[in-house]
Amino acid sequence: MRICLMGFGAVGQGVARVISMKNDYLNDKYGLDLKLVAVTDTSGSAISSEGLDVDLLLETKALTGKVCKYPEFGIPDLKNSKTMDMVDYDVLLEVTPTNIEDAEPAKSLIIKALEDRKHVVTSNKGPLALFYKELMSLARENNVQFKYEASVGGAMPIINFAHDTLPGCEIESILGILNGTTNFILSRMTREGSSYEHTLQEAQALGIAETDPTQDVEGTDAACKTVILANSILGTDFTLEDVKVEGISHITSEAIALAKKDGYLIKLIAEVSPYSLSVSPRLVKEDSPYAVDGTLNMATLKTDLADEVTVVGLGAGSLETASAILSDLVNIWKKT
Amino acid sequence: MRICLMGFGAVGQGVARVISMKNDYLNDKYGLDLKLVAVTDTSGSAISSEGLDVDLLLETKALTGKVCKYPEFGIPDLKNSKTMDMVDYDVLLEVTPTNIEDAEPAKSLIIKALEDRKHVVTSNKGPLALFYKELMSLARENNVQFKYEASVGGAMPIINFAHDTLPGCEIESILGILNGTTNFILSRMTREGSSYEHTLQEAQALGIAETDPTQDVEGTDAACKTVILANSILGTDFTLEDVKVEGISHITSEAIALAKKDGYLIKLIAEVSPYSLSVSPRLVKEDSPYAVDGTLNMATLKTDLADEVTVVGLGAGSLETASAILSDLVNIWKKT
Repeated sequence: MRICLMGFGAVGQGVARVISMKNDYLNDKYGLDLKLVAVTDTSGSAISSEGLDVDLLLETKALTGKVCKYPEFGIPDLKNSKTMDMVDYDVLLEVTPTNIEDAEPAKSLIIKALEDRKHVVTSNKGPLALFYKELMSLARENNVQFKYEASVGGAMPIINFAHDTLPGCEIESILGILNGTTNFILSRMTREGSSYEHTLQEAQALGIAETDPTQDVEGTDAACKTVILANSILGTDFTLEDVKVEGISHITSEAIALAKKDGYLIKLIAEVSPYSLSVSPRLVKEDSPYAVDGTLNMATLKTDLADEVTVVGLGAGSLETASAILSDLVNIWKKT
Repeated sequence: MRICLMGFGAVGQGVARVISMKNDYLNDKYGLDLKLVAVTDTSGSAISSEGLDVDLLLETKALTGKVCKYPEFGIPDLKNSKTMDMVDYDVLLEVTPTNIEDAEPAKSLIIKALEDRKHVVTSNKGPLALFYKELMSLARENNVQFKYEASVGGAMPIINFAHDTLPGCEIESILGILNGTTNFILSRMTREGSSYEHTLQEAQALGIAETDPTQDVEGTDAACKTVILANSILGTDFTLEDVKVEGISHITSEAIALAKKDGYLIKLIAEVSPYSLSVSPRLVKEDSPYAVDGTLNMATLKTDLADEVTVVGLGAGSLETASAILSDLVNIWKKT
């Protein structure tokens, strides 16, 4: 299976590492041979219809920061869409940074691939939160698969779980913790009794919160994920502006201590129903499935037959997110 | 899809109720029409190649306690294996009570069905904990499917989850709470500060513990499940006698209080690795995924790429267990 990989940051490099680690296993178990035929970053591209050497690619990126420095097959300044035209591939793997204004460049790249009848796998929340319906229709029209497990919950496999593991159940609603950064901050405030500002700084020092933490702490990241879950699992047609959002930046250590005295924790809870979407801080019981620690994500699916079923997994991480992408690639392979 | 249902207790009746509730949905979504062509209990059988009326069947059982009283098509004293010979069917659904001595009558019924090239779905731990390898080989030889999601964790979909939702990951080990009765007792002792004996009596009064609670409280039930998980997911060849088992009957309220003071809970933890299986009371952190309450079951899968992934769901219940059976039936249908 020939992969055209757009974006070579943490997630893209994770995918390359996973291919290097697991290609023999995938070959043995599924007869699947993953080949990277093109890779891009902001510097340009590397293209080889025979397949790039993933270890050499990772080494080149580590040493120079640029995929276009890949020996022999690197092309400086070659843009994503141009790269897609120059190589024959089976799956577009789109892992450029999320843009929640207009979802570009991801949106155009995905549309181009789907129109060219290529399967698409993405970890990018932008196009899904803003244009889910259009993109899914386009995939259906062109009879190709469009998969996005890594866009929600990193290594917490919620989307394929809902679709494949509970085929006899109807899913009525979802409640979850969909952002690892805020869960880390709230967990630490609870344990240490520390203030929001101080704990945010610690999270930034550890690389868990970004320099500009707005999208995480104000709930936007989790809001994007509620849209994706609702449209994908409940069959709705929401977009980002439909979500009622409240972040965690006003939560005090006093509020957390008060809740704790009564056996409760404060968590940033995302709620997904067929009628409304919301992200807001809420009280949850200390011994409930919502009481997960650190950067973990979790989601509880309310079903018609099995009552509540919960999945918990790491919300981020390069290899962890790559593992979700790998599951999508294997599932595409199994169905083709 | 014609189903021959052996056993019509809580689980069997749950399956009938689920078919009554969901047949239209399954028809719409998967083109699947589930027909009960035979049902047995200790009184005898009811057989109709056109399909029994599930509502009438449930009503007959509720009023008389006997499926052989089903109007027109009931046959008193007709045994399971005889029933299987008298009707043409596609799937044997085996939900007779678990027997961990020799796994009968389930073992013989399953073997008979597999040799007749019928698919088999079971919720029965006996045959799986004692004869997993033989039964799976027989299924493979006869080119039919043998599914058993409901045998572990009721509505917690661990087996299909491991096989289908994480296809890119290798699962290295599993830690979990696989028995709802003991988790209910320990959770309640923690909350109320009550003694083991007193709490067991409460659980019995609520119908959560059985009159003879030995298999639950001494860990045998959970031990069977470790064997099933290991053989199914890790590819081992263990049987019940390989499991190191310690129950919860010696746990005191003092030990629980002491643990709680340090932020820990005592839980009956099952550990599944390629090298050993065990069930024993252990300390877990209050804010960990193991801190689930009441009759919930949970399992954490340690994977090579996604670190730890956890599923939580109700460990028992008639409809809940039936939902796991329904998932197996749908998955068999999708692959035939």
